[in-house]
Amino acid sequence: MSTAFSPAAVRTLADPDTPFAVVDAHRARRNIARLRARADRLGVGLRPHVKTAKSLDAAALLHDGAPGPLTVSTLAEAEAFADAGYRDLTYAVGIEPRKLPRVTALSRRGVTLRVLLDSAEQAEFVAAAARETGLALPALIEIDCDGHRGGLKPDAPGLTGIGRVLHDAGCLDGVLTHAGESYSAFTAEERRAAARDERDAAVTAARRLRAAGLPVRTVSVGSTPTAHAADDLTGVTELRAGNYVFFDLVMAGLGVCAPADIALSVVVTVIGHRPEYGWIVTDGGWMALSRDRGTAGQPQDQGYGLVTDLSGTLIPGLVMTAASQEHGTLTARDGAALPELPIGTRLRILPNHACATAAQHHGYHVVDSGRGTSASPAIEAYWPRVSGW
Amino acid sequence: MSTAFSPAAVRTLADPDTPFAVVDAHRARRNIARLRARADRLGVGLRPHVKTAKSLDAAALLHDGAPGPLTVSTLAEAEAFADAGYRDLTYAVGIEPRKLPRVTALSRRGVTLRVLLDSAEQAEFVAAAARETGLALPALIEIDCDGHRGGLKPDAPGLTGIGRVLHDAGCLDGVLTHAGESYSAFTAEERRAAARDERDAAVTAARRLRAAGLPVRTVSVGSTPTAHAADDLTGVTELRAGNYVFFDLVMAGLGVCAPADIALSVVVTVIGHRPEYGWIVTDGGWMALSRDRGTAGQPQDQGYGLVTDLSGTLIPGLVMTAASQEHGTLTARDGAALPELPIGTRLRILPNHACATAAQHHGYHVVDSGRGTSASPAIEAYWPRVSGW
Repeated sequence: MSTAFSPAAVRTLADPDTPFAVVDAHRARRNIARLRARADRLGVGLRPHVKTAKSLDAAALLHDGAPGPLTVSTLAEAEAFADAGYRDLTYAVGIEPRKLPRVTALSRRGVTLRVLLDSAEQAEFVAAAARETGLALPALIEIDCDGHRGGLKPDAPGLTGIGRVLHDAGCLDGVLTHAGESYSAFTAEERRAAARDERDAAVTAARRLRAAGLPVRTVSVGSTPTAHAADDLTGVTELRAGNYVFFDLVMAGLGVCAPADIALSVVVTVIGHRPEYGWIVTDGGWMALSRDRGTAGQPQDQGYGLVTDLSGTLIPGLVMTAASQEHGTLTARDGAALPELPIGTRLRILPNHACATAAQHHGYHVVDSGRGTSASPAIEAYWPRVSGW
Repeated sequence: MSTAFSPAAVRTLADPDTPFAVVDAHRARRNIARLRARADRLGVGLRPHVKTAKSLDAAALLHDGAPGPLTVSTLAEAEAFADAGYRDLTYAVGIEPRKLPRVTALSRRGVTLRVLLDSAEQAEFVAAAARETGLALPALIEIDCDGHRGGLKPDAPGLTGIGRVLHDAGCLDGVLTHAGESYSAFTAEERRAAARDERDAAVTAARRLRAAGLPVRTVSVGSTPTAHAADDLTGVTELRAGNYVFFDLVMAGLGVCAPADIALSVVVTVIGHRPEYGWIVTDGGWMALSRDRGTAGQPQDQGYGLVTDLSGTLIPGLVMTAASQEHGTLTARDGAALPELPIGTRLRILPNHACATAAQHHGYHVVDSGRGTSASPAIEAYWPRVSGW
């Protein structure tokens, strides 16, 4: 788990070989507190998604150190969090038959692991597994609110039939909706509307199931943009969001956060200059940043990321505009002067998409900007990531 | 290293939990033999780049099991290959001062690890380290042939001065060029021209250094497109390429290979259907495929990848067109019928960019299509990857 560095071994961001990922725990705590306060005001529970950080140490900040409710994106995450004492998990990717043995193994260990499905076919095999094993295998029916990905429309004729199959096997837990299209909702009003659509879809589906005599416990909604915009979650039992712990330039581009809220960055080193092209070359390419170009479709394209000095202060006008496997190219925007950054200079890149950039690393060196600004912040811990499937 | 499965434990691609990466060793061996035959005909040595596979087992195919010359993209690769007995390595990313201790540590172990540089600043600190340690620290001067990334133009005034600094410290090994722009050379003639420019840049720089009385041993060129197009490498001592071991849809789009040469794929499972949108949903998203969309700028955009059945046979007209973290969306192209693929069906995705997709996995399950076609090919080995920096 967390590896706290002993005072004798105190190191700073000037020390580890680059590139490496950094989490600013102060910003992460602030982001977590912000959404928790919102959920409290809205009167719903919070079931954070751990797919972004994939870290037991980061997750410990979500529920004040308690093993509270979480959403996971892989069975590897479910197993790692179960090993750490978490007992209330939702696996938010549609279930397929070959994954059931790992689901039932977790259930046998006393873990409530809700599975997700949107077809009669899946309901049948989950129900069959529950009957065969005698285990409670709680399932959520995925509801589609915006045509983003999976799910049944709330008025789909098949909904109550699926609910019946699950209920008869003791598996029906509730419904789940994710407003994935809210990632392109550029105004607060659009995000509020997306949050209402997300809520309405889930609540409508739950109402239809209840009207058919099928008890619904969980009515789960969420995405980082809608979670920060929802103004009324009547009928909803829990809110999900994941990206918000770190945030990123896509969320900043939407206006959900500011660049100064982004808790994840990648430390890189200047390894070359091409003054004839206006380029500064670093050792941080797409292997360290990911290929994600999520801001490319936004009004302000942020390239592969914005650049800060090692303290975390933005260098105005400098953008990472190109990446090969182990090379990044920084250029000045809109006629800004290219700063003098000699070979060996360390910089931090704020990423487009925290989930994708974090996935390129085994873990995070952790700093805490709440202790004040430093030209080379002290590393307080190392948080490993859960990886694989 | 390679984990050979015992006959009692024989498994097939139907067995491991999805998503997972697969290498077809037959195709990889064929790709390797093809470029080796070219290098033999051209009369140059081959120094394959291991940045794509990052696997000791895959590298064992490159030089008939011998620890021959390799190119690496990280010091982590250099150290892993040194541990396995490789003694002739080139680290093809510009060096910076903080990485020198790991370079000198490898040199002390008897590893010839050439470093790369393109500035007087770098030459000075490499020379200083060589003098200080008394170690031979061979260096290559990076030459830019096409404005792609780093390097000095072959006629750059500073070239011989840098050569002199290196030579006086016993560090001058030679010059290295990479025609990165050849990744957008769509005809064989354009690639032949790029290969000539690459050769000319390296040979011109070497001639200038020699004319200044500076001995040049290595004249290194290469990229997968130019290595497969070069018709005359007079003056060049070695050819580098990496992607060619696996190939991918970007290379197929250029015409450097055919889709049937692509040795890397990712096995995914169907987890849902959205007939109203014409979507089949799988459990392979960008976490398994990477965010790379390298064919997006090609005449034929292949989305996130082409789809085959588990045997490796292409399913005509089916493309992976969207990805979220753990979801992939398959759609039919150009009015093709969407095939009937029930939940639980396993498929293989041929990736845009093998380097980026391979990087999303800890290793490869290995099959061998040279043993005949099978509806569910036997897994013959597991090849772990080197990761991190």
